[in-house]
Amino acid sequence: MYNPNNPELKSWVEVPEGSDFPIQNLPFGVFKTEYLEAGAGIAIGDYVLDLVFIQEHGYLDGLGLPNGIFNQPFLNDFIGLGRSKTSEVRTKISQLLEENCGDLRDNKADKTLALIPMEEVEMLLPIQVRDYTDFYSSEQHAFNVGSMFRDPKNALMPNWKHIPVGYHGRASSIIASGTPITRPNGQTKEDNQDSPVFGPTKRLDFELEMAFITCKSNELGEAITIDNAEDYIFGMVLFNDWSARDIQKWEYVPLGPFLAKNFASSISPWIVTLDALEPFRIPGPQQDPEVLDYLKYEGDKNFDINLDVFIEPDGAEETKVSSSNFKFMYWNIAQQLAHHTVNGCNINVGDMYGSGTISGETPDSYGSMLELAWKGTKPLKMSDGSERKFILDNDTVIMRGYGEKNGVRVGFGEVKTKVKPAKQ
Amino acid sequence: MYNPNNPELKSWVEVPEGSDFPIQNLPFGVFKTEYLEAGAGIAIGDYVLDLVFIQEHGYLDGLGLPNGIFNQPFLNDFIGLGRSKTSEVRTKISQLLEENCGDLRDNKADKTLALIPMEEVEMLLPIQVRDYTDFYSSEQHAFNVGSMFRDPKNALMPNWKHIPVGYHGRASSIIASGTPITRPNGQTKEDNQDSPVFGPTKRLDFELEMAFITCKSNELGEAITIDNAEDYIFGMVLFNDWSARDIQKWEYVPLGPFLAKNFASSISPWIVTLDALEPFRIPGPQQDPEVLDYLKYEGDKNFDINLDVFIEPDGAEETKVSSSNFKFMYWNIAQQLAHHTVNGCNINVGDMYGSGTISGETPDSYGSMLELAWKGTKPLKMSDGSERKFILDNDTVIMRGYGEKNGVRVGFGEVKTKVKPAKQ
Repeated sequence: MYNPNNPELKSWVEVPEGSDFPIQNLPFGVFKTEYLEAGAGIAIGDYVLDLVFIQEHGYLDGLGLPNGIFNQPFLNDFIGLGRSKTSEVRTKISQLLEENCGDLRDNKADKTLALIPMEEVEMLLPIQVRDYTDFYSSEQHAFNVGSMFRDPKNALMPNWKHIPVGYHGRASSIIASGTPITRPNGQTKEDNQDSPVFGPTKRLDFELEMAFITCKSNELGEAITIDNAEDYIFGMVLFNDWSARDIQKWEYVPLGPFLAKNFASSISPWIVTLDALEPFRIPGPQQDPEVLDYLKYEGDKNFDINLDVFIEPDGAEETKVSSSNFKFMYWNIAQQLAHHTVNGCNINVGDMYGSGTISGETPDSYGSMLELAWKGTKPLKMSDGSERKFILDNDTVIMRGYGEKNGVRVGFGEVKTKVKPAKQ
Repeated sequence: MYNPNNPELKSWVEVPEGSDFPIQNLPFGVFKTEYLEAGAGIAIGDYVLDLVFIQEHGYLDGLGLPNGIFNQPFLNDFIGLGRSKTSEVRTKISQLLEENCGDLRDNKADKTLALIPMEEVEMLLPIQVRDYTDFYSSEQHAFNVGSMFRDPKNALMPNWKHIPVGYHGRASSIIASGTPITRPNGQTKEDNQDSPVFGPTKRLDFELEMAFITCKSNELGEAITIDNAEDYIFGMVLFNDWSARDIQKWEYVPLGPFLAKNFASSISPWIVTLDALEPFRIPGPQQDPEVLDYLKYEGDKNFDINLDVFIEPDGAEETKVSSSNFKFMYWNIAQQLAHHTVNGCNINVGDMYGSGTISGETPDSYGSMLELAWKGTKPLKMSDGSERKFILDNDTVIMRGYGEKNGVRVGFGEVKTKVKPAKQ
């Protein structure tokens, strides 16, 4: 049977060395051009394959796809077809782009119209996000934050190793890579102040996360078992959970972060399918104490995905500030979804679920400025000689991620966001 | 100028004594009948005025409404027309139903088709809820909970009188009155247990709230000032924020309630417009310490709305367990929305914003079983002789609310929800 993840596959579309988008990836996104307001595409090398065109010209005939399924501003309807159907589409596209297939390759007119150079498109938010949940599933991150703000000897809360702790976030302010954010205003109160003051956050931070997107609904009242959980997950993106640490500190007890987070979260525009991530599965950490039955799982549910963060000061070169990996998750995505629904909570097509900040074990693998510069005590040096404790106005934060195995690199592209000064 | 809130107005539609729906109310909802899958309606007395029919038959001509605006499963598009347009529609309907207007009254055929007896309709969820936020704005509730779980001497957190504390909730599990809920399963850990156990919550609770619904968007990065906030608010509903206290206790530190809340929240199906609530404005409490500038407001922004909660054991009469009032809010809805967006967070048409549990000053006005039965130490007596510390399987919880002034009662109807036993 044709295996779209076969490392031997090559495409007739040129894929430059080091590209995130070889034929083994084929992530889905929504793009805009001078001529098309919004449509679905697939990334291949330095091109976007226009799925609207491909469907209209019969290349997907026989798959039983609804007409116009790609001619929409969001992928929700497409991913809502379910994993077996969307997998079929990815396989069909792989076959079409495979070096020995002449169907599109040898049709010069169609090929020219179907493959759009990436520099000619603008990538949009691919999903109309319904509900958004953020987890807190990296042990090192929870330990670091607990050490800083509570007690290094009891850094993890008593529930942390029993529950994939999560909380609800704001769906409306999830934006695509390239959309600038505005430094948020808010209330803060330092320990030495008697009352809170109002103004721009002084401690703007990123959080290096990944997020999965669901493609299937359950009925309210019905739990999703851990064995079925991945059938509800279409794919993943890079996720920058912007945070204002001073606002967070003052507001978050007892009901959790609110304005410290909901001013923006940025995602990478290409959704890498769970199918494409299959080769990168690895075992997760030993979970001790033993978890409750509904959280027990079989097989490899962690993923080996390298994650890097860069800061680009205004007019200067970018500087890498962190190298982490998605494999550092204590709780995996199947556990997260099983937990989320064990009380009967219903999920929908287009929900987004953040991992929580992903910090590795070494200080250069931490996933936030809070941890990297350790509450401002260890400023990071930039390429232009300046230092950062937190993110400054006009800085651009970039996150990139990829898995690499058997000579194949499956990447996420990047999420890149510039910070504009606060509104007066 | 015609004033639809004029207490002298009477309708040619019979409005029984004590009805929540006189001509001065005219709340909007979405209903279903044997012949119509979903359409918008207005409540008048014991009837639903079918707005799909009313528009199609020309009674709203001249208002410039889009065709089919009421022939939809949700009111989002309608309320998104903005407050001045939706106010115009309410005024026009008021004029049509006013006792001296013969346009519909004297058209027997149309009248029969336009007015549907309430017992012949099923009321649906009126809004496709986008984001949902829950506040925590009743001082007595925050004090009660702080006293029970922390320290009666420092029951309010230091931020509570500076910030309208809020957190994000789950939009997907907001359901209409009449939809039963299932007792949620989850992790709990009692103080005398070494590790958590899994099973149905033993402390299922209601929370008596109201919620407002937004009808206008702001751009990400742009705050909504407190003076403009009410222009973004279409109307209000009763809101039962179901809670599982044992699950909440174990999970909520440090990121707030999650599975303890997201299994269901129930709302009353009729949205009472902010216009109809005008007569019930009253001053709010003196806020001391003084709030920051962006939270300072002018005019009366609290509302005098009586709120009652009843428990109906299976097969028995209902028993009133609480009489509270929306006027007990420390933070008003304009302050909540100004705070929510002061960091640039964007809101959308169809967002829902819960008030938080509304507890009065006396023990019989508390808004949750946790407070009414004071952590199970003061069980409540039901009409059938049984006692309640929390909500039992097959109990039905009912909330009702209304304002009353100058002989006019503007009511919300009810939110009524039966609890089914947990899934095995």
